[in-house]
Amino acid sequence: MSVLLLHGPNLSQLGTRDPEHYGTATLDDVVATVRAEIDQVEAFQSEFEGELIERLHTARFDGTVAVIINPGALTHYSYALRDALELLEIPKVEIHLSQTHAREEFRRTSVISAVVDVTITGAGLLGYRLAALAVLGKLGR
Amino acid sequence: MSVLLLHGPNLSQLGTRDPEHYGTATLDDVVATVRAEIDQVEAFQSEFEGELIERLHTARFDGTVAVIINPGALTHYSYALRDALELLEIPKVEIHLSQTHAREEFRRTSVISAVVDVTITGAGLLGYRLAALAVLGKLGR
Amino acid sequence: MSVLLLHGPNLSQLGTRDPEHYGTATLDDVVATVRAEIDQVEAFQSEFEGELIERLHTARFDGTVAVIINPGALTHYSYALRDALELLEIPKVEIHLSQTHAREEFRRTSVISAVVDVTITGAGLLGYRLAALAVLGKLGR
Amino acid sequence: MSVLLLHGPNLSQLGTRDPEHYGTATLDDVVATVRAEIDQVEAFQSEFEGELIERLHTARFDGTVAVIINPGALTHYSYALRDALELLEIPKVEIHLSQTHAREEFRRTSVISAVVDVTITGAGLLGYRLAALAVLGKLGR
Amino acid sequence: MSVLLLHGPNLSQLGTRDPEHYGTATLDDVVATVRAEIDQVEAFQSEFEGELIERLHTARFDGTVAVIINPGALTHYSYALRDALELLEIPKVEIHLSQTHAREEFRRTSVISAVVDVTITGAGLLGYRLAALAVLGKLGR
Amino acid sequence: MSVLLLHGPNLSQLGTRDPEHYGTATLDDVVATVRAEIDQVEAFQSEFEGELIERLHTARFDGTVAVIINPGALTHYSYALRDALELLEIPKVEIHLSQTHAREEFRRTSVISAVVDVTITGAGLLGYRLAALAVLGKLGR
Amino acid sequence: MSVLLLHGPNLSQLGTRDPEHYGTATLDDVVATVRAEIDQVEAFQSEFEGELIERLHTARFDGTVAVIINPGALTHYSYALRDALELLEIPKVEIHLSQTHAREEFRRTSVISAVVDVTITGAGLLGYRLAALAVLGKLGR
Amino acid sequence: MSVLLLHGPNLSQLGTRDPEHYGTATLDDVVATVRAEIDQVEAFQSEFEGELIERLHTARFDGTVAVIINPGALTHYSYALRDALELLEIPKVEIHLSQTHAREEFRRTSVISAVVDVTITGAGLLGYRLAALAVLGKLGR
Amino acid sequence: MSVLLLHGPNLSQLGTRDPEHYGTATLDDVVATVRAEIDQVEAFQSEFEGELIERLHTARFDGTVAVIINPGALTHYSYALRDALELLEIPKVEIHLSQTHAREEFRRTSVISAVVDVTITGAGLLGYRLAALAVLGKLGR
Amino acid sequence: MSVLLLHGPNLSQLGTRDPEHYGTATLDDVVATVRAEIDQVEAFQSEFEGELIERLHTARFDGTVAVIINPGALTHYSYALRDALELLEIPKVEIHLSQTHAREEFRRTSVISAVVDVTITGAGLLGYRLAALAVLGKLGR
Amino acid sequence: MSVLLLHGPNLSQLGTRDPEHYGTATLDDVVATVRAEIDQVEAFQSEFEGELIERLHTARFDGTVAVIINPGALTHYSYALRDALELLEIPKVEIHLSQTHAREEFRRTSVISAVVDVTITGAGLLGYRLAALAVLGKLGR
Amino acid sequence: MSVLLLHGPNLSQLGTRDPEHYGTATLDDVVATVRAEIDQVEAFQSEFEGELIERLHTARFDGTVAVIINPGALTHYSYALRDALELLEIPKVEIHLSQTHAREEFRRTSVISAVVDVTITGAGLLGYRLAALAVLGKLGR
Repeated sequence: MSVLLLHGPNLSQLGTRDPEHYGTATLDDVVATVRAEIDQVEAFQSEFEGELIERLHTARFDGTVAVIINPGALTHYSYALRDALELLEIPKVEIHLSQTHAREEFRRTSVISAVVDVTITGAGLLGYRLAALAVLGKLGR
Repeated sequence: MSVLLLHGPNLSQLGTRDPEHYGTATLDDVVATVRAEIDQVEAFQSEFEGELIERLHTARFDGTVAVIINPGALTHYSYALRDALELLEIPKVEIHLSQTHAREEFRRTSVISAVVDVTITGAGLLGYRLAALAVLGKLGR
Repeated sequence: MSVLLLHGPNLSQLGTRDPEHYGTATLDDVVATVRAEIDQVEAFQSEFEGELIERLHTARFDGTVAVIINPGALTHYSYALRDALELLEIPKVEIHLSQTHAREEFRRTSVISAVVDVTITGAGLLGYRLAALAVLGKLGR
Repeated sequence: MSVLLLHGPNLSQLGTRDPEHYGTATLDDVVATVRAEIDQVEAFQSEFEGELIERLHTARFDGTVAVIINPGALTHYSYALRDALELLEIPKVEIHLSQTHAREEFRRTSVISAVVDVTITGAGLLGYRLAALAVLGKLGR
Repeated sequence: MSVLLLHGPNLSQLGTRDPEHYGTATLDDVVATVRAEIDQVEAFQSEFEGELIERLHTARFDGTVAVIINPGALTHYSYALRDALELLEIPKVEIHLSQTHAREEFRRTSVISAVVDVTITGAGLLGYRLAALAVLGKLGR
Repeated sequence: MSVLLLHGPNLSQLGTRDPEHYGTATLDDVVATVRAEIDQVEAFQSEFEGELIERLHTARFDGTVAVIINPGALTHYSYALRDALELLEIPKVEIHLSQTHAREEFRRTSVISAVVDVTITGAGLLGYRLAALAVLGKLGR
Repeated sequence: MSVLLLHGPNLSQLGTRDPEHYGTATLDDVVATVRAEIDQVEAFQSEFEGELIERLHTARFDGTVAVIINPGALTHYSYALRDALELLEIPKVEIHLSQTHAREEFRRTSVISAVVDVTITGAGLLGYRLAALAVLGKLGR
Repeated sequence: MSVLLLHGPNLSQLGTRDPEHYGTATLDDVVATVRAEIDQVEAFQSEFEGELIERLHTARFDGTVAVIINPGALTHYSYALRDALELLEIPKVEIHLSQTHAREEFRRTSVISAVVDVTITGAGLLGYRLAALAVLGKLGR
Repeated sequence: MSVLLLHGPNLSQLGTRDPEHYGTATLDDVVATVRAEIDQVEAFQSEFEGELIERLHTARFDGTVAVIINPGALTHYSYALRDALELLEIPKVEIHLSQTHAREEFRRTSVISAVVDVTITGAGLLGYRLAALAVLGKLGR
Repeated sequence: MSVLLLHGPNLSQLGTRDPEHYGTATLDDVVATVRAEIDQVEAFQSEFEGELIERLHTARFDGTVAVIINPGALTHYSYALRDALELLEIPKVEIHLSQTHAREEFRRTSVISAVVDVTITGAGLLGYRLAALAVLGKLGR
Repeated sequence: MSVLLLHGPNLSQLGTRDPEHYGTATLDDVVATVRAEIDQVEAFQSEFEGELIERLHTARFDGTVAVIINPGALTHYSYALRDALELLEIPKVEIHLSQTHAREEFRRTSVISAVVDVTITGAGLLGYRLAALAVLGKLGR
Repeated sequence: MSVLLLHGPNLSQLGTRDPEHYGTATLDDVVATVRAEIDQVEAFQSEFEGELIERLHTARFDGTVAVIINPGALTHYSYALRDALELLEIPKVEIHLSQTHAREEFRRTSVISAVVDVTITGAGLLGYRLAALAVLGKLGR
């Protein structure tokens, strides 16, 4: 009965990438932030669209109760990831560390948002705490 | 040293409008949700773009430390509101009750997001609690 | 149990503006035209988007049975006015004096039409008589 | 000295088609509605763009004093019908039973509206009464 | 209780036209191909949008159980044909001999596909056999 | 061994339509202009896209040696007419009386030009003499 | 017989806003700059589109001889303000402090320019002196 | 000398996903449907674009005689998959269970269709039987 | 009292360029073709937009009675050439050797056509004879 | 230490061109207007983009202190002129006699404005006096 | 201290694919070409976006001094690959064998170019030698 | 038997322009770089599109064996230069000093690339050495 915390391409590099937009927190810091709010968190990161999709499929049958996902740049074109999210009927929260709306043109379009419940952008590490609370709220806890 | 909670056109009607997208909470419920997290909250709602802008100007000089704003449909075209937000140099959080990305085409464009720190969509009443926490986080509390 | 007759920006100037497109009838003539068909008409004009929205909100609870609206140039961009109309669940008729489709490009787009029952363009003063009859018809009288 | 009532493709099927958008009135009901207001009405329906154009040409020389036209789906692409209407210098009223602006994207564009005097959408059968009155008004009766 | 096999403009010329895209089969060959699979086939070809629409209307009331249609170039703009198909509530299969997606830009858009059950492109004469089987399948035979 | 002179919708009305763009010459004058240059001319006009297509099909097998076509407003959307022209492998000249490029936006797009040999716009009645000479030239006379 | 000097949303904050684009002059400095050239200047600023429109209507009948307007961000979408300006038949000058063409994409479009006589962008405070001289020139002084 | 049956992302979930669009058949049912028509079928599904491309490369040299592919959502953006298909010079059939043209806007564009021989949409499980027959036909059996 | 025959960039190379689109006639052949119809022809070719504009200015005051122009690729972007043509108030004929509408996308747009009287495309060398006759016709000879 | 006054294509014809948009002043009048405000003015006009660019390069090293430029129609497409202006680091003023925003669509786009300090449109001859004052102001005189 | 030579989807098939665009050189030939210029080259090819991204991450910490990348069709949509390249702060060269600008429309857009130092298209095998020299040059050797 | 090295507008200013994008090398340095690789180089620079075109025409007949061209800003709109390049049937290399893809939107479009063999962007002075080697390679030396 855990929450799946999913990260897409390049988020493995958090803490060593473009501090202006992404801050200095590492992926471990991110996971810890969510774990501070939710007991059971399954964290998974992959540079592969296919692995993310497989992980989402597994979540359909293994008792996962909610998903927090930062799809990285897949946000802007991966209709396959979108389909995988759409067929998962539990609370889903999309999160981006940076304020994507204030960056390059292509970052303003998300093909994911329409199939998730909640979207949070721009809050940095704090955003993950918000996402965790959103999940808890959606689960009625 | 309070937080300004601003609502734009038609949000006065919350609780009596389209429950599928907006739920049954009223504007008072929204304010209470924020106040549960933050001691001092100044709530202001207006159907007038001009009044919202004036209120934001006042906030530049009256000790307001952060803004939470749900601009209603002004989100999609009010460059004047955008300018008013842009010249206010304190933490700013944009919030929408519904998942705007899953509705009509015109609701997917926000002219506001690029000038605020954090954007939260789709979390309903809970979103306001998240917004309050985002403000506290941004203020380092 | 009256009908609300709403006019947006610049329609106060009717009769003194661009006779080729708007004719010589004044706003009083317009109101009289509607009153000739419907006993109780509440007429309201404003240059303020906000006042029009407030007036529409009032109409939700004061026994107004239908709305006839000429939104003026707000027609082309006011999603806030659109939202106010959308949450009003009574017959709504949109009217334009001129044939907007035969003028500048920007006048061909209405963000309002999708949320009203009937749209009438190009019929001049006569159009208001038609709008009144549309209202009576929609009310089953 | 009669009024021409013209219907384009698929309107022969009125009453048996998609009641949500078109209601249950038949084409005969439509004609009767117009005749209730105007003594002499020539009704003509065709699935052929060419027959509609020929009928409009005839109307240039047979004493027709006005046209009421529901072009059906030709509304959205028939520049040939538009040209035929444009060269007819009598009052012209365009009418659609449904509120075309609230349906599929392609139904929001009319290539006809720019060359007619009056356009009425969304009023159902009642719209034809309005169209008849618009004609009488334009003719000064 | 027959199946209607409908062909639009220029398909009368099959076998004498652009063999690279359309092959050498004639319209008679096409009809024979369908008849090899389905006992009762009513074949109809016309260069007139209007005649195709009338034929589809007749099919609503004469016991036709399914339609196979190759609309020719009407595919790309005839919203009137689309409406005629939409109000026919039996299985409908759209077929194109050539792979329209690999030709001129304008051939990649079909205004018809959204209102039919099945679309088959690029299979040449064989495509008609597939269309016939699709019809039989949809009819549960 | 004659030349086909084809006219589309509304050109039957030449001489009585919008003299600024179309002049005062009638369709008979147009035919006479072409006949002054070419002995055998078959003139055909129709308001029906279907009849024009059928006439072009006939021309494939009856010894027609060239086509002069003024498609009227079909120019802007009739891909069916385009297909009919494309499969006719003789010299083809497209002609428009007015300078279409200096009028409404929609008149600047021709879906026909890409499949004819020569296009002439703006020369009025004289344009038909030019078209006739173009045909003679293409035929090597 | 005075000149109306009109300022739109956020220009009340001049001198305290983004000095790179707007400089350090205040609204009072702006007014003084115009008054140095023109004896009678009526200065009016508002955050409300509606108030600006009302002020322009008044100017139709109170002897105002010219208008200098900096519409702020309303420049980019307020067709209502455009209509109000269009029906005022005196010299009108539009002015922007910054070079709007060198900033964000949305600032490059003005819905106002087409209905004013003169547009001046990028000259800062000096631009108001130019605007005043433009007015004097247009008035033939 | 077998036929390759390829499925892209999320099609592993067939039978448990959105029955309105995809029906209740599982991927095993799909494979069985094709095998009922063709003796030797190699079935392969992957959530990975890369694995699908590798499988197509293998097919160039292992005696595969044709491909039936349902690319899932990769249909809409995977130019890499398109390139892999393009360099495979055997009959290729693209198949979609649902009528993609009647769903979300993004599903109407296929970057794959231009490089396959045949495309079949909307026929559900039956579509696979048609695809199998298309392959047999293309192979001349 | 002569006719100006103007050629733009790269037309000096006629006869040695891309025979499929431009044929084998040289610029001298072109000039001779026009001279065969018109006694006095002033021929001028330049690779410089500026020289073409200067030559058109001279034509305003030196008794030139008409212009035949093949602007080469300037057709597609030279608004300066367009302006030079626009202020010349004599008959103007635009000519292109190839059928520009059947070539690359950018060749389908002419910024010149809207300011000339006649446009002729696709007729090769013969087109110049037609252009000469068009000039004579426009001059009433 | 002079100011460069640069004019692009067709402005040599001032005073003899389209008085509705350009007035009756000649280029000499324009130069005189600027000289009335500034002692040393170097005036240069050319129909050649290349000559304008060369003149701007010279201005980098000959003590020119500011530029006033009316680029004529090059305004709308000459990125080469834009580059030449961009590398000149002195005050630059762009001026157009007519209100370009109220004319043809293509005149509403300037590729020049983003690299100059000030743009003035619509003020006619007077505009040059304003431009001269803008230059003096920018130079701090 | 080696140079990473990265190849994306389908480039494993070099030498057996479309010789008109890609030539007959194999991937081994390509690697040899680069090695002829640079001593230490690590060559890696993958059909997986994910593997390419992982390889780029490794290059951040293993002493790789530069990257040469031919992303294959990922060029046109993989924002994830773009992000991986962007966070690698060493010289990066993008190379395409064919002149992508002269092929299908979709090949003209690269989402990669903006984050690499050098782009080379169209030079075939030779292009890799150029890329190697570009790397040496950027490294100051 | 020499190589033509062509430079377009503003490249005469190299070394004194925007060092961030163009570096400090002068045009002489550029020529020297090419000459270090190729014995016979004819260098030509012009601010005039016309002179560049004339120089390309000369190259057709004077034994020029290849062209290296940096068209400057003409890259983005000069279809005339494109035509001149297209009719020159020798190896052609396009070069840009800066990475044009990472700058303003308009610099991302080249109307030239489709008609040259090789394009190199972003390599600065080094790029010219690469271009020289590309030429030698294309010439088989």
